Amino acid sequence: MTQPFALGWIGTGIMGLPMAGHLLDAGWPLTVYTRTKAKAAPLIAKGAHWADSPRAVAESSEVVFSMLGYPADVEEVMLGRDGALHGLAADGVLCDMTTSDPALAERLFDMASQKGCHALDAPVTGGETGARTAKLAFFVGGSEVAYQRLQPCFKAMGTNMAFFGGPGCGQKAKLANQTAVAGIMFSLCESLLFVQEAGLDADHWLELVAAAGAAGGAPMNTRGRRILKKDFAPGFYVKHFVKDLGLCLQECRRMGLVLPGITVAEQVYRSMQVQGYGQQGTQSLISWLAALSSTAWRGGKS
Amino acid sequence: MTQPFALGWIGTGIMGLPMAGHLLDAGWPLTVYTRTKAKAAPLIAKGAHWADSPRAVAESSEVVFSMLGYPADVEEVMLGRDGALHGLAADGVLCDMTTSDPALAERLFDMASQKGCHALDAPVTGGETGARTAKLAFFVGGSEVAYQRLQPCFKAMGTNMAFFGGPGCGQKAKLANQTAVAGIMFSLCESLLFVQEAGLDADHWLELVAAAGAAGGAPMNTRGRRILKKDFAPGFYVKHFVKDLGLCLQECRRMGLVLPGITVAEQVYRSMQVQGYGQQGTQSLISWLAALSSTAWRGGKS
Repeated sequence: MTQPFALGWIGTGIMGLPMAGHLLDAGWPLTVYTRTKAKAAPLIAKGAHWADSPRAVAESSEVVFSMLGYPADVEEVMLGRDGALHGLAADGVLCDMTTSDPALAERLFDMASQKGCHALDAPVTGGETGARTAKLAFFVGGSEVAYQRLQPCFKAMGTNMAFFGGPGCGQKAKLANQTAVAGIMFSLCESLLFVQEAGLDADHWLELVAAAGAAGGAPMNTRGRRILKKDFAPGFYVKHFVKDLGLCLQECRRMGLVLPGITVAEQVYRSMQVQGYGQQGTQSLISWLAALSSTAWRGGKS
Repeated sequence: MTQPFALGWIGTGIMGLPMAGHLLDAGWPLTVYTRTKAKAAPLIAKGAHWADSPRAVAESSEVVFSMLGYPADVEEVMLGRDGALHGLAADGVLCDMTTSDPALAERLFDMASQKGCHALDAPVTGGETGARTAKLAFFVGGSEVAYQRLQPCFKAMGTNMAFFGGPGCGQKAKLANQTAVAGIMFSLCESLLFVQEAGLDADHWLELVAAAGAAGGAPMNTRGRRILKKDFAPGFYVKHFVKDLGLCLQECRRMGLVLPGITVAEQVYRSMQVQGYGQQGTQSLISWLAALSSTAWRGGKS
């Protein structure tokens, strides 16, 4: 196999669109399919080929990436009647980067193996900013040979990657990351709301804590500052976080693991979705929390 | 007032001892009192004077610092029969750095004012490591004039400080920080336990997430690595975190603020204290969580 090899891409949302763009920019030939063709226009303008189905994408690709919303989408796009697996030639690779069910990743791997193909589960972290700036991190599981083969692609889209083991291990590592993110969102939103209600200067407080506190570092600096600006754009959708936390709890049940923190977090984010926060960023938790006390988040001065 | 001015110090625990040491090292004359005299020996060896009561400390000091465990200790040491306030000359400063009740900080301020003295509430963040390495951050409230006067002292013990307003505002800013820490401890411990139970390599996972993830940054790097080493030494005592979270919830009730995350956290840490974790570091949460699923935290490879 020579580089650049032919790539396929399925899914052009806030993550998929910039990620595929980086692969095009790096010189790979790329065939794209997405549910709403108009959303692929920026890629087609950059030289991507359009295909009318996931199967058609796979027929002209050695590697097919997918970046979708939900496990059901992955199942449909990869294994459905017009799914990519049916179009893939032997030795081809299916690489799903959706945060999805580890059990589905195992099934994809097994079905790809039966066709002499390879599968990777490679969900990412870094959000929309990471996708735009090619600074994502990849949690990878599945075929280690395929992982090595796809290194140049991952490097075009991100800065960090690690292989965690067989099929589903990338998903499990990502779900552990989402478990960590849940606690951090509560940390940020409850502390900032406390600051506001105590009548303190939130900009001032964030500056001190981000720089020096036991709670400091990157999340306080980046997401904390978004919250101060009342910037609730996704970043990362509440509706997708509800899906991720549901997957976390499902995996906990399979493992016999009890985690009270994410159990509360899943219920809270589910309430947010029901109340209409689904299309907002996860940081809008602060508005939901404020409403519990019949108050509102007023933001910082900046 | 010329520098160095005479300082008093009350409380020589895991925080107070190294902090007072930095002031001595910087050349201030220092008079010390603590409940158990033996604990002050390292300071006396460095040239500190011993006094037999908080009042006696204040009689030979222009500024009296306290670094204690609980609000009741602060009340006793500052306002009790042999309390520092009774020994302080006019224009003297009481600076309490214990994480304590904002209402008590207000009372201290009022009583100091009645004597022509000043009061500061200046709780810190950075833990035992920050205290040892003089890298603490100070959340300060009370008299702004006294805050300016004490800048050289704060700079000898820390790297960051901010003034948040009148009496109690330093305590409120610190309680907001503890609110943030609670979420972060759940974030770290639940995610690492998920990683272990999923059979993934925890060192590998922490490395990737600390470097690049949405959950990355300082807490993941420092406390996360302690957890991997099964290092449960305090750092920060569970028993003091129970006190701090209790103060957070008490302040929330005063403000009419409902925060479900720290409500759960306070209950969990209270259970930890009852079960005998009180003298351990807050990161031992991971052992309490593991026990919920009848498993144990096995740590990383390193």
